[in-house]
Amino acid sequence: MSALTTIPADIACLADYRRYAEQLLPSPAWHYIDGASADELTKQANESAFARWQLIPRVLSGVTNINTQVNLLGQMHQFPMLLAPVAYQKLAHPSGEVGSMQGAAAQDIGYILSTLASTALEEVIDYKQSADCWFQLYVQPDWHDTLALIQRAEYAGYSALVITVDAPINGLRNREQRAGFVLPAGVSAVNITATQSPQGLQACLNAAPTWQTIKQIMASTHLPVILKGIIAVEDAMLAKELGVAGIVVSNHGGRVLDTMPASVMMLSLIRQAVGNDFLILCDSGIRRGSDIFKALALGADAVLIGRPIMYALATAGPLGVAHMLRILKDELQLTMALCGCASIADISTKHLITLQT
Amino acid sequence: MSALTTIPADIACLADYRRYAEQLLPSPAWHYIDGASADELTKQANESAFARWQLIPRVLSGVTNINTQVNLLGQMHQFPMLLAPVAYQKLAHPSGEVGSMQGAAAQDIGYILSTLASTALEEVIDYKQSADCWFQLYVQPDWHDTLALIQRAEYAGYSALVITVDAPINGLRNREQRAGFVLPAGVSAVNITATQSPQGLQACLNAAPTWQTIKQIMASTHLPVILKGIIAVEDAMLAKELGVAGIVVSNHGGRVLDTMPASVMMLSLIRQAVGNDFLILCDSGIRRGSDIFKALALGADAVLIGRPIMYALATAGPLGVAHMLRILKDELQLTMALCGCASIADISTKHLITLQT
Amino acid sequence: MSALTTIPADIACLADYRRYAEQLLPSPAWHYIDGASADELTKQANESAFARWQLIPRVLSGVTNINTQVNLLGQMHQFPMLLAPVAYQKLAHPSGEVGSMQGAAAQDIGYILSTLASTALEEVIDYKQSADCWFQLYVQPDWHDTLALIQRAEYAGYSALVITVDAPINGLRNREQRAGFVLPAGVSAVNITATQSPQGLQACLNAAPTWQTIKQIMASTHLPVILKGIIAVEDAMLAKELGVAGIVVSNHGGRVLDTMPASVMMLSLIRQAVGNDFLILCDSGIRRGSDIFKALALGADAVLIGRPIMYALATAGPLGVAHMLRILKDELQLTMALCGCASIADISTKHLITLQT
Amino acid sequence: MSALTTIPADIACLADYRRYAEQLLPSPAWHYIDGASADELTKQANESAFARWQLIPRVLSGVTNINTQVNLLGQMHQFPMLLAPVAYQKLAHPSGEVGSMQGAAAQDIGYILSTLASTALEEVIDYKQSADCWFQLYVQPDWHDTLALIQRAEYAGYSALVITVDAPINGLRNREQRAGFVLPAGVSAVNITATQSPQGLQACLNAAPTWQTIKQIMASTHLPVILKGIIAVEDAMLAKELGVAGIVVSNHGGRVLDTMPASVMMLSLIRQAVGNDFLILCDSGIRRGSDIFKALALGADAVLIGRPIMYALATAGPLGVAHMLRILKDELQLTMALCGCASIADISTKHLITLQT
Repeated sequence: MSALTTIPADIACLADYRRYAEQLLPSPAWHYIDGASADELTKQANESAFARWQLIPRVLSGVTNINTQVNLLGQMHQFPMLLAPVAYQKLAHPSGEVGSMQGAAAQDIGYILSTLASTALEEVIDYKQSADCWFQLYVQPDWHDTLALIQRAEYAGYSALVITVDAPINGLRNREQRAGFVLPAGVSAVNITATQSPQGLQACLNAAPTWQTIKQIMASTHLPVILKGIIAVEDAMLAKELGVAGIVVSNHGGRVLDTMPASVMMLSLIRQAVGNDFLILCDSGIRRGSDIFKALALGADAVLIGRPIMYALATAGPLGVAHMLRILKDELQLTMALCGCASIADISTKHLITLQT
Repeated sequence: MSALTTIPADIACLADYRRYAEQLLPSPAWHYIDGASADELTKQANESAFARWQLIPRVLSGVTNINTQVNLLGQMHQFPMLLAPVAYQKLAHPSGEVGSMQGAAAQDIGYILSTLASTALEEVIDYKQSADCWFQLYVQPDWHDTLALIQRAEYAGYSALVITVDAPINGLRNREQRAGFVLPAGVSAVNITATQSPQGLQACLNAAPTWQTIKQIMASTHLPVILKGIIAVEDAMLAKELGVAGIVVSNHGGRVLDTMPASVMMLSLIRQAVGNDFLILCDSGIRRGSDIFKALALGADAVLIGRPIMYALATAGPLGVAHMLRILKDELQLTMALCGCASIADISTKHLITLQT
Repeated sequence: MSALTTIPADIACLADYRRYAEQLLPSPAWHYIDGASADELTKQANESAFARWQLIPRVLSGVTNINTQVNLLGQMHQFPMLLAPVAYQKLAHPSGEVGSMQGAAAQDIGYILSTLASTALEEVIDYKQSADCWFQLYVQPDWHDTLALIQRAEYAGYSALVITVDAPINGLRNREQRAGFVLPAGVSAVNITATQSPQGLQACLNAAPTWQTIKQIMASTHLPVILKGIIAVEDAMLAKELGVAGIVVSNHGGRVLDTMPASVMMLSLIRQAVGNDFLILCDSGIRRGSDIFKALALGADAVLIGRPIMYALATAGPLGVAHMLRILKDELQLTMALCGCASIADISTKHLITLQT
Repeated sequence: MSALTTIPADIACLADYRRYAEQLLPSPAWHYIDGASADELTKQANESAFARWQLIPRVLSGVTNINTQVNLLGQMHQFPMLLAPVAYQKLAHPSGEVGSMQGAAAQDIGYILSTLASTALEEVIDYKQSADCWFQLYVQPDWHDTLALIQRAEYAGYSALVITVDAPINGLRNREQRAGFVLPAGVSAVNITATQSPQGLQACLNAAPTWQTIKQIMASTHLPVILKGIIAVEDAMLAKELGVAGIVVSNHGGRVLDTMPASVMMLSLIRQAVGNDFLILCDSGIRRGSDIFKALALGADAVLIGRPIMYALATAGPLGVAHMLRILKDELQLTMALCGCASIADISTKHLITLQT
């Protein structure tokens, strides 16, 4: 089946997009997109962890205006959310990364393009409007390839580098393997050459970036550098010491190493360790505006949305992405209003409680 | 299908009424009535939370008389329970609010009429017998409309105002949206005019009541004022300071903001904070007489029953409501007898234990 | 279908007897026997609670002889288990209480006959062999009826009175009500007259025994008196103070008041409160020899087995009861052997651990 | 059906082998192999317990080489894993123990042969390559039979004795009994004579080894002696005091006594009690390389793999075993790489966290 051209009336939340995408996508692509590592326990934990915190609303608060702006890296974002750098978006819809960028732009939401995008990075950023566009970097085995990618991204207008550090080797994608997934014709990582991908554990480890590599990159670009994929408190502290602009607390949506804790479970531990003057983003498992509210309360400055991009693209292309983002915006605003928070700065752990039934 | 004219022999408890209602109601109405906000986690928590406390019965206690009377706002109620102000009761049965009032009157149970009743408030109270009848108020965008409603309620004979403060904006009723629910012909909020309902977040927030509004209402009526929808301990204390007559600890049956804690989980925290000399009612999730017993033990003076009104109306009209209330009365009396409590004042946390299996 | 005449090879444990009984019994009788009060949460808790304690076996212990004898009320029992006083056993099998007595006698297991037995108490005890036979007493509304029952039991040779104190009123047997259960022709409480059963809450409470009644009974019989149905620690202490011979920690298999804690959860609290020199039996939820082991470790002197009598009777009559009891004996012996316990006195909480996964 | 001759593409992990084995094996053999004692709660706990610990990965660690070698009893093993002594392997595949040995040898993994092997112990060790081969001993009722077995094992070249101490009597294999399992023609314990197996509890206890038996064995052989089946901390300490070479913390895969704790739950308690200078192996429930990582972090020097041998043999014979072991090797290496552990010695509880959602 192919994607729909209007939004069905029975799509009320992100889970509904997932339901549609499962129907509309070929099975192997579906399992590649929806699947995760091994037994997918981390993926499940990501989504269920948010229920651990209950919301405490406030009544009669007199809040009449909801302001969701946040300042990230010196730029004002209308909303504390960016699209995560999801690979191969043409798997979900022919419009691919251009489609998701159009959806993001329509909602004034920031965008992060993956190194493994199926569209040329220069083409995607053409559709950028006012919200920022960042580039996600997989360090390449050859330093010159890495440098070339950085320079292309800079030149094209990407305003930050998000270096993924949690996936030096491929995860155990058992579900994907069982489904026999291979990239279909016409979908490939067009911004790099195939020979750049190391094969096998040893080759991957040889090519893996180190703290030294990050230093080298920081010295080679004027772009702010964010490290994506931090879970250990110690790594968050090392990142801050190194002087990077920020981190993304993330377990890669559970796609790399199974039985890692839910990202959001590590957030407050990491925020406590690094202090308040350091940019922390968070991803993995956010499916509701209330999840965003909770992540912010627990220490995140903003969040990234990953798989739902693909669910929405698969269902209704760019229109789907825009609508999906609109749902999240509405849900966050409603949560803020009911909790008596007029601005992002008002969101704190005072609005959360953890009561075990 | 239409409602039954006798009570089927296999209705033994409130869950049985829910089962029948699901069969008898048109699907959209069913999902409007039974549904809740977003993923309905709060609705589920409301119902499952009571199992957290186990009952410790007492034997050979010599109790030979069970007295369930409570004094609420200076009036003696035969039972520590009122019907909650459920909107649009004609959705469940043609008799609507008159039907539920007849059922309540037959069992001598107090009644709260919703601003969004589908029957004129003057018509409903005509069926009042000895038990009290209160009016639930949604503050209207225009002060004069609010005042007019209050005066109509006073004039008609309602003896308290229950102001709902937890729903300044509509909840995310995902299930209801998917089911395509709209009010059918012949069912509407006949006590207000359509133009009084604000549309959209901004309009809702502009029209939302504040603590100042409550003060203004208290100055405009001789009726005691109860605030419905308190979850935060701080809001309970503010309410008491303002001088209202009481509060309803409630999350609106999970219909407004999902992932709020179960109402009953907040009860003892709130009772502890406000002290014993302040009226606390509680609703959300009460389906058994033992649930009423537990809510009273945890600090409530009385409870409200919501959705079961609709389940019972849909199943067997006024007769169903009367029977449903009778079941709750019998169940509470049995629980009191087995726990050795001759009167409501005897019910305390000494009869509860929380043992985790 | 009627009961089997041989034990099927696929009956390996008590749960298998339950499975067969469900197939073989008429549905209303099945739901009467297997059902419990309200939502049956206490019944479920009774069975699942045992998994809370894990067994710590001991190796190379040198135990070569397993002795399961216990002294109860001055009599040596070959096994720390008695058949509980289950009512109306002819519902399960035409042999009724005689059948279960034959099964118990074959395994040298003690027996407690219910006041609500469907067979004359004199007839049942005719089948007694070496193991003790006790009589369970429901106090009757008229003292002379109570006294007459006691004297009949004494005269017939029952050697203890087990007075049930936790069921002054009938439980909310919702499942039984939905199934439309009534006693079939030929099954009735032949030891009492129908007029002795009070109807309605008030009549039940008027007829309910008190601590004073127990004193009166103790003064009227030379038989040792055991109170069955104690859950509150305070009631256990009152019972000991009154001078009864012992108690049964029991929630009546979850048949009276739902959401009571599992019996076994209260055991160690009660044992700690009353000290070691007081007889404590325990029932509700025991389905494995390892459950017996755990109950003894937590403070019970012996346990009662209830519903499994009916499952086994329904499946294969007296033979089924004997085999069911044999399974429990084998399972307890195996558990003792693997835990290095040569005798009942060796069983203690040292063999238990509570590790949460 | 018979075993496959190639590895199906949809086998990505050990659970996939289990799925295939269930399809390929006759039902009774399947239930014998896959089943466990009683309600199989311990078996389930073994597998689910690992999820209690979440992995904390480290990024940018600079690890470029993964060394999985461990020294066990003075011999270097390429991998901290051995095949557990699973009985009657011809049930799974005609190649039986020879098949599993071939698979182990192909992956350079150590091997433990069961006393209840369905192949002569001399024939199996013929297929040994560089990795060590140990012999599992069930102490026989007659000391001369025991001694003869030990001497055969020594003479054949087995380099350690693993004495199983947790199964002096047969477990309650309810599932196996219901399935009517009996050893099929051509599968038997060829290394012992049938008359050596005691029948019944008393005979089993009479024949059961004691601490004295272990001393006697240690005095009769130059082979290092390991005790398999230790769960109690006290038994671990007694074993160390006696001077054995090591222990296997194991609950026999849940096949002996149900409701024992998961083996891995006892690991750190036991390691803490016996100190670091004592060999501890662990089995029961390991199905992932990450499980091995966690067991090592919690105190094991190496682990044993049991049922998966049979799953893999049944699916694809020796090739299946080799592939199954290869999966575990790859998974452990990946886990080590992502956690920044270059060697087994780097694995510690610092890489684990226990966060409850």
